[in-house]
Amino acid sequence: MNSTIETILAHRSVRKFKKQPLTTEQIETIVRCAQSASTSSFIQAYTIIGVTDKEKKQKLAELSGNQPYVAENGHFFVFCADLYRHEVIGEIEGRDVIPSLESTEKFMVSLIDTALAAQNAVIAAESMGLGICYIGGLRNRLEEVKALLQIPERVIPLFGLAVGYPDQETDKKPRLPLHHVYQENLYNSDKEKIQKDLEEYNKVVANYYKERTGGVREDTWTGQMSNMLSRRVRMYMKEFVEKQKMDLR
Amino acid sequence: MNSTIETILAHRSVRKFKKQPLTTEQIETIVRCAQSASTSSFIQAYTIIGVTDKEKKQKLAELSGNQPYVAENGHFFVFCADLYRHEVIGEIEGRDVIPSLESTEKFMVSLIDTALAAQNAVIAAESMGLGICYIGGLRNRLEEVKALLQIPERVIPLFGLAVGYPDQETDKKPRLPLHHVYQENLYNSDKEKIQKDLEEYNKVVANYYKERTGGVREDTWTGQMSNMLSRRVRMYMKEFVEKQKMDLR
Repeated sequence: MNSTIETILAHRSVRKFKKQPLTTEQIETIVRCAQSASTSSFIQAYTIIGVTDKEKKQKLAELSGNQPYVAENGHFFVFCADLYRHEVIGEIEGRDVIPSLESTEKFMVSLIDTALAAQNAVIAAESMGLGICYIGGLRNRLEEVKALLQIPERVIPLFGLAVGYPDQETDKKPRLPLHHVYQENLYNSDKEKIQKDLEEYNKVVANYYKERTGGVREDTWTGQMSNMLSRRVRMYMKEFVEKQKMDLR
Repeated sequence: MNSTIETILAHRSVRKFKKQPLTTEQIETIVRCAQSASTSSFIQAYTIIGVTDKEKKQKLAELSGNQPYVAENGHFFVFCADLYRHEVIGEIEGRDVIPSLESTEKFMVSLIDTALAAQNAVIAAESMGLGICYIGGLRNRLEEVKALLQIPERVIPLFGLAVGYPDQETDKKPRLPLHHVYQENLYNSDKEKIQKDLEEYNKVVANYYKERTGGVREDTWTGQMSNMLSRRVRMYMKEFVEKQKMDLR
């Protein structure tokens, strides 16, 4: 096993960071690594906003559900799916690019491009001994995030990324067994098989929580997921995305 | 610069592979690395299908726009955004998870989760000396891909990933200058500024193509992008995604 694979497999989210800020060089290396990811037809459909302003960070922490590590970290990035630059390109070149930019296909492309770039940033940061936490909570109140960061149409802030020197030890939650997630030649959608698989995995997850809490926490993956998914969160998203003129046709 | 960052920055897509197949151990390491990526609220919303069947690979190559490296490689993965497993969880636990599963928010989560996992797979593969190429062309004819791989509702094949031992030297296209993609504290949407930035980048891209083709190819990024975006491709995607019962509300 090489050191890159060791870094990848050692990943766990860090939610408490030392006060030490990242250097400009570290930030630039992380961004260059993000940019080095593959991009669909060279479209480069993302923008990364580094938030250094203390008040803005505090406000983002609040908007993300009062997560203190959004404000307290070595650096905070906001990863945005971005087709605004391409609208400008259409104007410069005098070509009608709008139907493309408003398509579900290009919405998907922009999300995928942004996520590929972000994960490169993460691996780069972790390889330098830094810790990271993705902040999906950034999507709780996107209208306010949009106003705070002056986000134009055709841009969607997808998630935050807190980076810094770890100030806690964290565990890694056991993932789905490999053969659940990886199949060969076809998707086996047999519900009985999936149910058996989930029972197997529930035992693993239950053990993990039991051991970690000295027997206090009783939880399974299906229990946790059904709780989470029976809550209807961020149901404004469709309207928000459409107001940003994406995913329209 | 550490070796992980070197690997990330050295990335270029490879479109010609040696015949040597990946070993089971290599495939499993790649999948475990994919699974090690962060996942939104532990949802793990993806399935990876490894395609080894020669006829299926040939068919996928054809469906992806006759790209031979879809059939000829060391291994071929199809990365699918997947909320089907979570539908089964709702049934097992007797909870109504359907509004969540059909929301734009969870559609986005499943795309992001899948892309984060895929990029981990890519970095792991490249760290082993393998080359990769993402196959967005897999989305050209998804109804046929769906039938071929028996994909159920709530699952969307997002892209393919060809992996193998490189049999060609390839160049890396120069990315947008860092300060275009990375901004601090707010999004600068000033169109004049963006236009100037694009002119600067156009020169870089034009030089790249000129040098690479002995002066034959004249192209700019804005030219290339406006050509690509003025074509309306995969406009069936919205309908396909909705038929898969995702991104509905």
